[in-house]
Amino acid sequence: MGGGADDNLTAILYKQGDLRLENRPVPEPNDDEVLLRMASVGICGSDVHYWTNGRIGDFIVKAPMIIGHEAAGVVTKCGKNVKHLKPGDRVAIEPGVPCRRCDSCKYGRYNLCPDIVFCATPPCHGNLCRYYTHDAAFCYKLPDHVTIEEGALLEPLSVGVHACRRAGVTLGSVVLICGAGPIGLVSLLVARSMGASKIIVSDLAENRLQVAKELGADLVLKVDPSASGQDLALQVEQTLGVMPNISIECSGAESSIRLAILSTISGGCVLLVGLGAPEVKLPVVNAAVREVDIRGVFRYANCYPAALALVATGKVDVKKLITHRFKLEETLQAFETAKTGAGGAIKVMISC
Amino acid sequence: MGGGADDNLTAILYKQGDLRLENRPVPEPNDDEVLLRMASVGICGSDVHYWTNGRIGDFIVKAPMIIGHEAAGVVTKCGKNVKHLKPGDRVAIEPGVPCRRCDSCKYGRYNLCPDIVFCATPPCHGNLCRYYTHDAAFCYKLPDHVTIEEGALLEPLSVGVHACRRAGVTLGSVVLICGAGPIGLVSLLVARSMGASKIIVSDLAENRLQVAKELGADLVLKVDPSASGQDLALQVEQTLGVMPNISIECSGAESSIRLAILSTISGGCVLLVGLGAPEVKLPVVNAAVREVDIRGVFRYANCYPAALALVATGKVDVKKLITHRFKLEETLQAFETAKTGAGGAIKVMISC
Amino acid sequence: MGGGADDNLTAILYKQGDLRLENRPVPEPNDDEVLLRMASVGICGSDVHYWTNGRIGDFIVKAPMIIGHEAAGVVTKCGKNVKHLKPGDRVAIEPGVPCRRCDSCKYGRYNLCPDIVFCATPPCHGNLCRYYTHDAAFCYKLPDHVTIEEGALLEPLSVGVHACRRAGVTLGSVVLICGAGPIGLVSLLVARSMGASKIIVSDLAENRLQVAKELGADLVLKVDPSASGQDLALQVEQTLGVMPNISIECSGAESSIRLAILSTISGGCVLLVGLGAPEVKLPVVNAAVREVDIRGVFRYANCYPAALALVATGKVDVKKLITHRFKLEETLQAFETAKTGAGGAIKVMISC
Amino acid sequence: MGGGADDNLTAILYKQGDLRLENRPVPEPNDDEVLLRMASVGICGSDVHYWTNGRIGDFIVKAPMIIGHEAAGVVTKCGKNVKHLKPGDRVAIEPGVPCRRCDSCKYGRYNLCPDIVFCATPPCHGNLCRYYTHDAAFCYKLPDHVTIEEGALLEPLSVGVHACRRAGVTLGSVVLICGAGPIGLVSLLVARSMGASKIIVSDLAENRLQVAKELGADLVLKVDPSASGQDLALQVEQTLGVMPNISIECSGAESSIRLAILSTISGGCVLLVGLGAPEVKLPVVNAAVREVDIRGVFRYANCYPAALALVATGKVDVKKLITHRFKLEETLQAFETAKTGAGGAIKVMISC
Repeated sequence: MGGGADDNLTAILYKQGDLRLENRPVPEPNDDEVLLRMASVGICGSDVHYWTNGRIGDFIVKAPMIIGHEAAGVVTKCGKNVKHLKPGDRVAIEPGVPCRRCDSCKYGRYNLCPDIVFCATPPCHGNLCRYYTHDAAFCYKLPDHVTIEEGALLEPLSVGVHACRRAGVTLGSVVLICGAGPIGLVSLLVARSMGASKIIVSDLAENRLQVAKELGADLVLKVDPSASGQDLALQVEQTLGVMPNISIECSGAESSIRLAILSTISGGCVLLVGLGAPEVKLPVVNAAVREVDIRGVFRYANCYPAALALVATGKVDVKKLITHRFKLEETLQAFETAKTGAGGAIKVMISC
Repeated sequence: MGGGADDNLTAILYKQGDLRLENRPVPEPNDDEVLLRMASVGICGSDVHYWTNGRIGDFIVKAPMIIGHEAAGVVTKCGKNVKHLKPGDRVAIEPGVPCRRCDSCKYGRYNLCPDIVFCATPPCHGNLCRYYTHDAAFCYKLPDHVTIEEGALLEPLSVGVHACRRAGVTLGSVVLICGAGPIGLVSLLVARSMGASKIIVSDLAENRLQVAKELGADLVLKVDPSASGQDLALQVEQTLGVMPNISIECSGAESSIRLAILSTISGGCVLLVGLGAPEVKLPVVNAAVREVDIRGVFRYANCYPAALALVATGKVDVKKLITHRFKLEETLQAFETAKTGAGGAIKVMISC
Repeated sequence: MGGGADDNLTAILYKQGDLRLENRPVPEPNDDEVLLRMASVGICGSDVHYWTNGRIGDFIVKAPMIIGHEAAGVVTKCGKNVKHLKPGDRVAIEPGVPCRRCDSCKYGRYNLCPDIVFCATPPCHGNLCRYYTHDAAFCYKLPDHVTIEEGALLEPLSVGVHACRRAGVTLGSVVLICGAGPIGLVSLLVARSMGASKIIVSDLAENRLQVAKELGADLVLKVDPSASGQDLALQVEQTLGVMPNISIECSGAESSIRLAILSTISGGCVLLVGLGAPEVKLPVVNAAVREVDIRGVFRYANCYPAALALVATGKVDVKKLITHRFKLEETLQAFETAKTGAGGAIKVMISC
Repeated sequence: MGGGADDNLTAILYKQGDLRLENRPVPEPNDDEVLLRMASVGICGSDVHYWTNGRIGDFIVKAPMIIGHEAAGVVTKCGKNVKHLKPGDRVAIEPGVPCRRCDSCKYGRYNLCPDIVFCATPPCHGNLCRYYTHDAAFCYKLPDHVTIEEGALLEPLSVGVHACRRAGVTLGSVVLICGAGPIGLVSLLVARSMGASKIIVSDLAENRLQVAKELGADLVLKVDPSASGQDLALQVEQTLGVMPNISIECSGAESSIRLAILSTISGGCVLLVGLGAPEVKLPVVNAAVREVDIRGVFRYANCYPAALALVATGKVDVKKLITHRFKLEETLQAFETAKTGAGGAIKVMISC
């Protein structure tokens, strides 16, 4: 495959376990869109989940769907209404385009728009391909010194931005992050840059905690899965010297949500990013009478500009998250690596 | 019993099931306190609970404790630092006096002060008696046209104020209130006065829903205990015409918390006031991915002035909550009535 | 003029002082729009100002412009994307349609969108005519029991909603409203419905204060123009019994802004709605060191639904604001009445 | 003078221009206080102002007053209620002790307490002396690696914390700081640590801008005093590439407040820290219709813990602010240096 102007190699998930590379026609941008030559696409846990399970909750792959949504590319053509971009501009792609007309959109919480078109969430196509069109208002021009891979990483970084904003991280926050996977790590990077004074990261795996330390965790806690939530919460407090006022739960495990609730100081906030079993048994009275708020997040809204600023100013170095790189032609191998976590995989990037 | 100057008949809970009336010495106010001739004290569900169970969670009646905390009285003597009150002033008594030195106090969330002295929460004495001293800064002078019983009712009304504030009730809010007991009813009264545009109250009991209607509920829903949370949530939406953006849960029942979560529109808030089983199984992922916040309340802070203004301006009529009245000498009968709910008891008041 | 299907009598401001009625073609709605048979249009102070002065600040009438923006009408035709409306629906028209793509729009503060198309702000046409097309997402269906005139009045009411929201009016607020014109009066109505416990309205004119009282002002203050700001602030405090924590300034006069600042209690907020001289001399240090915030408003965003709920639930009665009614053919007479305030004119409505 | 146990050399401002060193008795701490051996006291602009002018606004030196309030010391004795400190602890001293009983205190905005006792604000004594007692709840223990001089610098740093919090500085904020004196510089340090993505500092003096650069300003603007506010605002925008969304005004000059208002993007915030003429002429309509909020600050509340965390974690290096050091015996020389700014004085520290 040569990558000519009309070559649009595309990664399509036909159904559970059936991911194929095919050539597709190059699309045309409408008046408000740009046509992009895709450059870098990261693999997200959700991409792998659709591939291995064919669904996430009520989102089910019922028809062939182009996969991929952590992406950046180069503008090759602009619709006639597009003013702020021109061919040659390198852009990060915010993968969700909302309806702009519902109450959620009008209020600025467009991530909650029921009609949002979000890349690689069924039935919407993603952008792991060579050519792709996207609404220009959700393409963010990268400064020259920001690499295209960093552009793609603005997607997971935006998850961290939204999580930390919803959690209310600010100057002097003491933060517990449960889970040192990619989302825990971006939350760590963002929380630090928002002024958190102390951050502890918990995980079951020593090697992941090691990465957290390298990325700036002040303290880490290796969780003993046989310990009670109460005991672990005590360990958190003793390790920190105080109880955290914010806990960001990134694993989705019931035991970990429990730890987050019990650890958080009265008046604080537990932020749920990780998704696990739909129903969990929790010490809700403990949280309620201590006014510990429990908040969730769904993707992000208005976070790309801040995420880009974090990278552009050098406040966070997301490149450290990339552990593996593959070509578009090696997509299956890339997904296999992301699935197994072979070689300590954190973030697997595909170059288009 | 004559009620002479040195007669201080006092209701003392010795232990579970053992509530006695005894004469106690009249106390002396310190420099920052006032001595109060107690006038009206309401019975709260927690008073009854300590009487029947001897404990609430970790708060255990280990020594004889004066009961009562929904109270108002008349100033009879002022400590030398007291400037804003004088003998003869009728006051509502905010029952918790915080330490004023911890972080929670400094930040204005004094209800979370770990050292707060709160009437009739073991081991602190309450004020169901004839004479009682209290910190003057937590006594609020009643205007002439506000009755002393209304003054006592500022306590449960403040619970409603704090709940509605924490829930973010404001102009245009659509509110579901789960449970039409005293707390559900005060939440209803407060939510209306904060500009909620539509309020639906749910309960198992038809007669309680009838009271809710009389107090201003726009709609009511009689809950079929065999229905699923999903079905009930659909009933709420169909009855209202929209999903509520705020649900205030006042029952503490797992099924009701579940209903509150499933009913609330994306981006909304579930506020937990009712306390039930310490551990409950909940559809937490449903709440998290729809960014429905789950918040609890513990008593109240800075709510008495607003509660008093609500009553003084006639915006809410709390007197409707009073269904039974007893004298201090009839305290046991009053508690019995509050316990059984005989005669449709909502709020039982004791006159001292 | 008969009002046949193709009769589109239209009020056009050619230039300062030159307002004409002309027949214009009936427009066609695009896919996202509805065609409306206009029913009621109120006259706003800004309409009169464009007529008499030809400009407001940098907004200058350079080409003939259809006047009018406080409007309601009946849907006669729907663009193909319109789902929530159908012909025959009576709707209130939010007059500003933002670009939906800029940062302000994405963040939900679409009133600050630099590219907003706002009726009767040059160079954009208004809707004082028989037939008019508008973006359906900014048309709000009226319930049967809400009149079309009330629908038109949602526009000034939304100004009051936005002002009170930005000012932070809530349960227990003590509010000073400076100026008892239409905006002062809608602010009064909204502040009451949001739970303000006491509202004082100040004005120079006794008859306007009388209207304020009828609409629910707890207290009024007739301003002596020769009194100092300090003296007037003292009068406000003495009349209220406390200093207001919120002052909503609706006159734009320097002396009145000064009064608002000096009157407001430390930690409170002065909200500027009225617009006067571009430069004013103010006691800024007084405000700053007492942490009295000074905030302005520009139109409104996300306020129509709350304004509609206020009217639909009967919490506010905007009909009382209407003092005069004219037919479309009598537009000039209507503007003359609005300009002179003849006959105690508050709100002049035109029926199309 | 030897500094023996009973030597309490003290700097007393008798009246304007009359600052003396005298020996005073060593005070005794009450039950809630600690006795401190003073170690480091910085000179604030307000100290110099009281010395040179005898007053600041309504605060007038009418009786001899001990000067100094940016201080740290060592605990030598504890009142009997003091639990969190012990003799030998090195502490930073928050100089204001509020009444804890008024509404402002209850709400957590204790800086607005009308009865606050604040060091070296007439008629309250300061702490530029050898021995001093202070409420223990407002003494913050320093970790071993934080120097006592850094402890004293928590006072101006807290001003920066409060300013940045009130201004809403957060991830991605673009900030203009007007004035590169000590307060401008601490605001710069704090804004950076709260996640501001770009900060520009303006000043008239090149050497001060140089210091701002060294402390982390991304950009600086040397203000031409003959340029119009509009022109300067344009320079700010062109230098930054965007308009700042937050402007922190630290000079108090009318022209600078004007610059701050005109520079700030619609929907942003101007924060006034600097105090100048009581009355200033401002483009208030410009701010109001663009919803640019104007907020002031008065000292700080609940900022010491965050300021201490900033220093203890190494996020900011306040030591760079110290340009001159003197002994207590050299107090007059120290004040002279602070007054004239000789030798590029930023912060002058006195060692006790």
